[in-house]
Amino acid sequence: MSLNLQTHTEHFTNPLYLESGRILEPYDITYETYGTLNDDKSNVVVVCHALTGSHHAAGLYEGEAKPGWWDGFIGPKKAIDTDKYFVICSNVIGSCFGSTGPMSMQYPHHEPYRYKFPVVSIKDMVKAQRILFDRLDIHRVHAIVGGSMGGMQALQFAIHYPNFANKIIAMATTHATQPWAIAFNKVAQESILNDPDFKQGYYDPKLLKEQGLSGMAVGRMAGHISFLSPESMREKFGREYKLTDGLYELFGKFQVESYLEYNGYNFTKWFDPLSYLYITKAINIYDLSRGFDSLDEALKRITSALYLISFKNDLLFKNSEMQEMAQILKKIGNRNHDYVDIDSNYGHDAFLVELDKFENNVKDALNG
Amino acid sequence: MSLNLQTHTEHFTNPLYLESGRILEPYDITYETYGTLNDDKSNVVVVCHALTGSHHAAGLYEGEAKPGWWDGFIGPKKAIDTDKYFVICSNVIGSCFGSTGPMSMQYPHHEPYRYKFPVVSIKDMVKAQRILFDRLDIHRVHAIVGGSMGGMQALQFAIHYPNFANKIIAMATTHATQPWAIAFNKVAQESILNDPDFKQGYYDPKLLKEQGLSGMAVGRMAGHISFLSPESMREKFGREYKLTDGLYELFGKFQVESYLEYNGYNFTKWFDPLSYLYITKAINIYDLSRGFDSLDEALKRITSALYLISFKNDLLFKNSEMQEMAQILKKIGNRNHDYVDIDSNYGHDAFLVELDKFENNVKDALNG
Repeated sequence: MSLNLQTHTEHFTNPLYLESGRILEPYDITYETYGTLNDDKSNVVVVCHALTGSHHAAGLYEGEAKPGWWDGFIGPKKAIDTDKYFVICSNVIGSCFGSTGPMSMQYPHHEPYRYKFPVVSIKDMVKAQRILFDRLDIHRVHAIVGGSMGGMQALQFAIHYPNFANKIIAMATTHATQPWAIAFNKVAQESILNDPDFKQGYYDPKLLKEQGLSGMAVGRMAGHISFLSPESMREKFGREYKLTDGLYELFGKFQVESYLEYNGYNFTKWFDPLSYLYITKAINIYDLSRGFDSLDEALKRITSALYLISFKNDLLFKNSEMQEMAQILKKIGNRNHDYVDIDSNYGHDAFLVELDKFENNVKDALNG
Repeated sequence: MSLNLQTHTEHFTNPLYLESGRILEPYDITYETYGTLNDDKSNVVVVCHALTGSHHAAGLYEGEAKPGWWDGFIGPKKAIDTDKYFVICSNVIGSCFGSTGPMSMQYPHHEPYRYKFPVVSIKDMVKAQRILFDRLDIHRVHAIVGGSMGGMQALQFAIHYPNFANKIIAMATTHATQPWAIAFNKVAQESILNDPDFKQGYYDPKLLKEQGLSGMAVGRMAGHISFLSPESMREKFGREYKLTDGLYELFGKFQVESYLEYNGYNFTKWFDPLSYLYITKAINIYDLSRGFDSLDEALKRITSALYLISFKNDLLFKNSEMQEMAQILKKIGNRNHDYVDIDSNYGHDAFLVELDKFENNVKDALNG
């Protein structure tokens, strides 16, 4: 069967009450679906995206060079099998691919929010999705799957809507963002803010599209370090030097430098810097235990079957953070969870790149 | 006895032939000494500084808030005991604390070099020091000690001047800079270059002194991440939030963010951005095996007693890189080396901070 990719946007006029006490009103959510919803609506799998991801998780649009960000994972006969499951992936609020974010028009003015956009949390992102599913008349799903910030959403679903999903699969993520990750986000944020072309959000959209903002490019380079590991970088790049450059040229480049430049300067043409500020903020303030006496109390709320997957060399969200969760789950008598640590040198990006190392875990979790 | 701190600058008119084929002429080297040279000049210990260090390794000048960068280590009865040893620490060429660097005047013009300064290597830095010691009529030393880039210098001494030192103590360093470290340097370099106030080196010195360059501040923040580890950051900062800031304020701050801001913006007032570009370049191109058929061949040159010290959670120069050296030394039959991996969560900065964890190793190496 085919992927059956469809893209939609839903408009909501009721206010979204945010964790901060502020409201978002009105708002849009853009989402994609793959596969076909069965008659009793029992085959829904929700996929949640990471910081710079979008609702476009699989398939290839006409004219597109690269398919969706988890295309190797979602499709007919793939780990998330669209012959079997109806997959929904929505763009989070605060992002810049169709759902309402800081560059959306602020009602009733015809001006983007920019800094007037409220800080949204992972919990807010999840709440907005829950409202989308209500609109689609989906009140329970088979599974919620996500990595990195997508895993944060999956866990937040598990705690705040304990009756919504049969299964939660969270990978390369944590229960609360630790200072190492916050520090990398800080470098990116400061780099954006200090770029005179950013103009506190009043940047020229044409400039962004044509050459990007150098501040965001540099910030993204820092991000790319955090997604890898010393080991994977050494394997990938070694000490290879660009052939055309002399070793004693001040601006001669190692391959790893070219890689960072390419990815940094490319990124800033397609991602909105205000969204970067807001989504990294959401990641920074993410903490499952907020509003509870302890993380134990938060995790006690979970009734879904819970599958935790960490990666050995993930420095951004260390496997020890997942282990902390697994230990608490055991302590509080949760008998419906599974934790696996995948052997990988790749670093954080393993959840996007080394699919073969954990796709069987996801298949078993979904189908078992 | 007292520290007997003295500061000197030597001026050299003969050309310094650099690895690149270029020359530096004339040049200055600024250095400090501590302790007293004995009659047969057999008590000299050379200390080599890291990226942003200087010749000011110990003691406190009048009006100074903080003593030299290794003050806990160098002094009467300290690990490098100035009652016993005559310690010399010189500012490397390319730096900005008195030795010739990119902001020095280019002879015979009365204009700073800026980008006309030649790329210098760690080997060049060591060669310049060797020439300084010749001038001081010191032709053999008891030991050379350094961490990070200081350790690179110590190792480079061991290979290129094998009869110069009885003992080499290199810590928190490597045999060749790996892409993880190069990547962090790249973020700092790009951040400096993209700062419009940098003006390709034609920045306003007054601006630098009074408020610093924001590009270098952000670059330095990335550096500060690389000096720590996820574990030490978690221990040091946790998820503490600044008391006066609201959690849902876009620019509300975690403690780790304040730490990075403080250190980044403070740093740029006292360090020259051109020197940062040149010294990070020197670190990037550092490779002990250059000019030899292999690292084995390079290490075969060593005749000094060699003491290697790595730190378990150093991500910048991983302990595995030191282990590679130790394995080769064993393989090639070197019987005069010792390697120890210090148990520490601190990360790279352990060599500056957790002195108590390895000062006995250094004492034993020096005095044994």
